[in-house]
Amino acid sequence: MTYCVGMTLENGLIFMSDTRTNAGVDDIASVKKMHTWKIDGERVITIMTAGNLATTQALVSLLSERSVKPGKRDPSILKAPTMFQVARLIGETLREVIRENERSGQEADAVFDATIILGGQIKGMPPRLFLVYPEGNFIEASSDNPFFQIGETKYGKPILVRAYEAGMSYEAAMKLLLVSFDSTLKANLSVGLPLDYQIYETDSFRIESHGRIEARDPYFVQVSDNWGDALKHAFMELPEYKFD
Amino acid sequence: MTYCVGMTLENGLIFMSDTRTNAGVDDIASVKKMHTWKIDGERVITIMTAGNLATTQALVSLLSERSVKPGKRDPSILKAPTMFQVARLIGETLREVIRENERSGQEADAVFDATIILGGQIKGMPPRLFLVYPEGNFIEASSDNPFFQIGETKYGKPILVRAYEAGMSYEAAMKLLLVSFDSTLKANLSVGLPLDYQIYETDSFRIESHGRIEARDPYFVQVSDNWGDALKHAFMELPEYKFD
Repeated sequence: MTYCVGMTLENGLIFMSDTRTNAGVDDIASVKKMHTWKIDGERVITIMTAGNLATTQALVSLLSERSVKPGKRDPSILKAPTMFQVARLIGETLREVIRENERSGQEADAVFDATIILGGQIKGMPPRLFLVYPEGNFIEASSDNPFFQIGETKYGKPILVRAYEAGMSYEAAMKLLLVSFDSTLKANLSVGLPLDYQIYETDSFRIESHGRIEARDPYFVQVSDNWGDALKHAFMELPEYKFD
Repeated sequence: MTYCVGMTLENGLIFMSDTRTNAGVDDIASVKKMHTWKIDGERVITIMTAGNLATTQALVSLLSERSVKPGKRDPSILKAPTMFQVARLIGETLREVIRENERSGQEADAVFDATIILGGQIKGMPPRLFLVYPEGNFIEASSDNPFFQIGETKYGKPILVRAYEAGMSYEAAMKLLLVSFDSTLKANLSVGLPLDYQIYETDSFRIESHGRIEARDPYFVQVSDNWGDALKHAFMELPEYKFD
């Protein structure tokens, strides 16, 4: 499985993804699930992928190839005029990859599926965040629905729902994402460290900040330990149940 | 969906289940998922069910019918000599129900599946807690694995993992279960109030305490509100992330 979150903030976008990939529990590896294409000063496009690894890698390769070969007939996400058109292009490319694999004779249901979080900005327009489905269609984040999760989403959702605020700082957003990832990591072996993150600041048209949180990252270890204690403490502080 | 939790405690067993059943989001109803058979002073057997409602209702009806008709050929859970034999009987009955429905021509995968949490005690032996799979086999709780969840288990798992202690009081266990259910209710429409609970105290051979938590239950409302605040507060108290 996988766990990725993309969030809209008042000042920009923030992305975090795990790096675990597995075929069964005895074949585990680490792979990057966050990919960025950009033209400095003009556009930044970031995707995170969940699902069949062959599908997501083929998608990323196709998107890259079509971006660097200007003479090619296929349209490029670096040329699409709006983020909406970028989302359509990615949806079509994803559908194309899944369809090709399906034609190869494999019959298992949904085994080639992938889901994509897409975020970015093109000059002259606001930043946008999308969730692209395996069928190629997509939805966009809004103030009612300000973040998207893909993969193993359930363990880490309650804290996002409770603590997310559009006006939070990048530092607070990083903390929130790390708590959400920590809850997921604690509960599910198919999500694993290290974690990749990236912050995009509105109208910067470059990646403000990005990096990788390793298992021994002192801040992550601290958050993970403290969060366990804080949860227990918060739980103790709740009023006691009384039987009638 | 459904959410049920059964926990072993040093002094007994505690069970909680939601009551929502749905066929799509436009056909929602309330149904009891917790059922008890007992011989006062000799044995108490409680099950909670998740999965296809027709299957779980047929299972409960068959178990009841075979318990009240002493002349019937089929063995009864009220006569099985050990909880292990009760688990086997329930597993066999479950498999029988699923198989019968499958023979009726329906072809969809797993659509008749159900999963059961079984707990109870027979005089002379300690209380035991089992998780029975649709295949009819089962696993037993142990100190490493002291509780079972069925249905929509993921949202409510992190707090169980962090705050469960075998030695906790019934009051603390009720509080823990209500927090776990609250996280699930907040995130997933297919789990709904009211909640049924039941407490079995070791060697009592009767149901110590049982009841139903309604949506307006003052304690539940208080826990739900306070927990949201406590989570936010705990989150604020965590050290701030610092970008390099």
